[in-house]
Amino acid sequence: MTNFLSLADVTDLDALIQAGRDAKANPFADQQLGKNKTIGLIFFNSSLRTRLSTQKAAQNLGLNVMTMNVGQDSWGLEMEEGVLMNGDKAEHVREAAAVIGRYCDIIGIRAFAELKDRDKDYKEQVMHQFAKYAKVPIVNLESATRHPLQSLADCITIEEAKTTARPKVVLTWLPHFKPLPQAVANSFCEWMNARANSGDVDFVVTHPEGYELAPEFVGNARVIYNQDEAFEGADFIYGKNWSSYTQYGQVLTQDPSWAVTMDDIRRSNNGKFMHCLPVRRNLKVSDEVLDSPQSLVIEQAANREWSAQAVLKEIIKNS
Amino acid sequence: MTNFLSLADVTDLDALIQAGRDAKANPFADQQLGKNKTIGLIFFNSSLRTRLSTQKAAQNLGLNVMTMNVGQDSWGLEMEEGVLMNGDKAEHVREAAAVIGRYCDIIGIRAFAELKDRDKDYKEQVMHQFAKYAKVPIVNLESATRHPLQSLADCITIEEAKTTARPKVVLTWLPHFKPLPQAVANSFCEWMNARANSGDVDFVVTHPEGYELAPEFVGNARVIYNQDEAFEGADFIYGKNWSSYTQYGQVLTQDPSWAVTMDDIRRSNNGKFMHCLPVRRNLKVSDEVLDSPQSLVIEQAANREWSAQAVLKEIIKNS
Amino acid sequence: MTNFLSLADVTDLDALIQAGRDAKANPFADQQLGKNKTIGLIFFNSSLRTRLSTQKAAQNLGLNVMTMNVGQDSWGLEMEEGVLMNGDKAEHVREAAAVIGRYCDIIGIRAFAELKDRDKDYKEQVMHQFAKYAKVPIVNLESATRHPLQSLADCITIEEAKTTARPKVVLTWLPHFKPLPQAVANSFCEWMNARANSGDVDFVVTHPEGYELAPEFVGNARVIYNQDEAFEGADFIYGKNWSSYTQYGQVLTQDPSWAVTMDDIRRSNNGKFMHCLPVRRNLKVSDEVLDSPQSLVIEQAANREWSAQAVLKEIIKNS
Repeated sequence: MTNFLSLADVTDLDALIQAGRDAKANPFADQQLGKNKTIGLIFFNSSLRTRLSTQKAAQNLGLNVMTMNVGQDSWGLEMEEGVLMNGDKAEHVREAAAVIGRYCDIIGIRAFAELKDRDKDYKEQVMHQFAKYAKVPIVNLESATRHPLQSLADCITIEEAKTTARPKVVLTWLPHFKPLPQAVANSFCEWMNARANSGDVDFVVTHPEGYELAPEFVGNARVIYNQDEAFEGADFIYGKNWSSYTQYGQVLTQDPSWAVTMDDIRRSNNGKFMHCLPVRRNLKVSDEVLDSPQSLVIEQAANREWSAQAVLKEIIKNS
Repeated sequence: MTNFLSLADVTDLDALIQAGRDAKANPFADQQLGKNKTIGLIFFNSSLRTRLSTQKAAQNLGLNVMTMNVGQDSWGLEMEEGVLMNGDKAEHVREAAAVIGRYCDIIGIRAFAELKDRDKDYKEQVMHQFAKYAKVPIVNLESATRHPLQSLADCITIEEAKTTARPKVVLTWLPHFKPLPQAVANSFCEWMNARANSGDVDFVVTHPEGYELAPEFVGNARVIYNQDEAFEGADFIYGKNWSSYTQYGQVLTQDPSWAVTMDDIRRSNNGKFMHCLPVRRNLKVSDEVLDSPQSLVIEQAANREWSAQAVLKEIIKNS
Repeated sequence: MTNFLSLADVTDLDALIQAGRDAKANPFADQQLGKNKTIGLIFFNSSLRTRLSTQKAAQNLGLNVMTMNVGQDSWGLEMEEGVLMNGDKAEHVREAAAVIGRYCDIIGIRAFAELKDRDKDYKEQVMHQFAKYAKVPIVNLESATRHPLQSLADCITIEEAKTTARPKVVLTWLPHFKPLPQAVANSFCEWMNARANSGDVDFVVTHPEGYELAPEFVGNARVIYNQDEAFEGADFIYGKNWSSYTQYGQVLTQDPSWAVTMDDIRRSNNGKFMHCLPVRRNLKVSDEVLDSPQSLVIEQAANREWSAQAVLKEIIKNS
């Protein structure tokens, strides 16, 4: 693994999941690996879990960490090529990425979708420009269309909690009043489809009409528009809101019946509830679910440390 | 000591003060204690001394430090239970605290009073919610009603500078045009009352009418409304502004005669001036006092490093 | 070297340049030097390269690093003496500097010119107040009138890239729509004049009428108002925009013919292009120049790590 931008950068998913579980069992086993190496964490957007878990994972590996909030600690970066830079962006990514790449051995980048221009978001310009110009490995800390560190943590969590060899995993859309990116849902589909292909899960997606995800992400997953039907026999219910991909960035419905409650859990196969956090209580999922033993959301967030550690270890070893 | 939320968490105050003085004499004696442990410093409000001194103390003990400004690095946190989260708070403290508690071995929290609703502020919701949900020790980096790391630094400073076994310590209100929390004054009363009970100080409070502190903090301290009278024989003059507790959050007077000048020092027993900083010069206290040998404000701020180190050491040893 | 505020603090410039090159060749040779020491990096203004390169250099030397954005992490600082502090500045530099100096062994400060009052900017109040009150070494991370860590990196870069014993170095003004400080240009003049005096470079300055730099900085440098003429035979073209010093802080022209293009490079002696970054592409210099082998801007930025490391090493050794 050189970059970690998406699942395509992973050569052995089983081994990577196992590396995460090994890190969890023995966090400081590779403490010498990162000695005299530095990771830069560059945030174009806010972050809590990703900020802290990636920093923690890096420290477990003995890496130095430098964190920067773009536009707050520094200034806006121009991503387009060939432009006359007479606007509000003071520096081009060609320089910024190349320079940060001289100070850092690995760079983590968070840059969300703007939800204005689908083609632009789905081109993943920020990640690709950094990967092109930095000349050091780039780690995706959530991009416009993907959140692979989350997906890896999700895989680890399912492996830990599953009680059957091939659990049924259902990704369900949840209601929200704000337009949110598709990144977490896209990534989850991408990784679950891979797990389904290797026979490790049975994967179903459910959402209202109009919330179809991009075909390259939904792949061969079974899409069921009736949430109750989708939840039947589910071992894991993975909740997430996203705005429409087809009517890009729009909120088409806020139908509260799509929120997950204990009725949904009872309808499933004693299903565990997962969500990447932050989650708005009682809007997307009830207090009762989150505070029940069915909820895996804290363990899932805790596993972000181990997914980051597995990825960073793999990158350091290959560099 | 598990949490350090207030004086109530301290089992042996004399020992804790001594631990601070020991850390000052030998900062790196316990450098192995924090190895492979991490403290998260979470700021809901601005900070200079607390930010730097706590970080420094943690590093002296070999701890890793992760700092986060809530609302700037991340997003607003909902503190109320059972609400429908359809407002501007994207995450509930139940999740945030639990997750940060999985990445950190100790969490420091700064969350000031809002000075709008006295009952709400005095419930200390942020501290209590973090203490409830984080499952790791919580350190108060100044809360709505208390600033115990400051009070411990104040105790250390008085111990260092006292020239008599039982010095007279006077807390005086100072004028200010902005409404400020009662936290520092409350805490100082709480800790000085304990020192008075053990015979280590004689403690007096002076302020204009209407600035009475909460009874649970002022305790048995002598309150004298005449500042000149209060300062007679004072070995330590501890200045601080606070807004009214009884007419909650209001500025009732800005009477400049309450500012501390050299006349006040002369009226005292060659009294030393203390203030927790930041201090507005010539509004609350004259340049002449701050720049004289009577001022202990820099030493007092320097002692914040040692108060934090004493507390963190105690917490690590007990965990 | 105690402080590093300007070239005047450097006793042996050749040795300092060599120390930077040595650090580049062997970054971790002095890793024990900074053990149990802490540098505080205090930013009154945004920063990318300075923030990351200084932090990196400090870590290479084994220093602990604490970073603070004034006004964002903390609050505004009053720099004037003797004032009644009833405005928006909550703390005086006398206290802030003294206190930070108790937590840190070295303090780095960034504080740009405000470009409103020339006398005020050129007094370098922030640097001098910190140097006066902190009682620990101060490092200039770009002040109102100077950027010496940049100038040292520039010297290192020229030494590395020069192909003749005494290269011709031309500082050229570049067009920009915003008023920018003179700091980088001032410092570059100061350092290049020293290099010219020791016979190491031939130094020329070119800019439109009205953009004359302060006499104390431009010194004996040859000033040529015709850019084409200035570029003849140039080995290094060092571009930078600055606002007028004589009509202080004003933008007198945005004449695009002053931007550097390949025509300018061809006019020179196969000249290398240098710029301190950030640089606005196609406004100040063409894509073609920046993306050509003539550009040294990335190497120059990379050398910021080694200039900072040389300075910090010298300060630690002398403290």
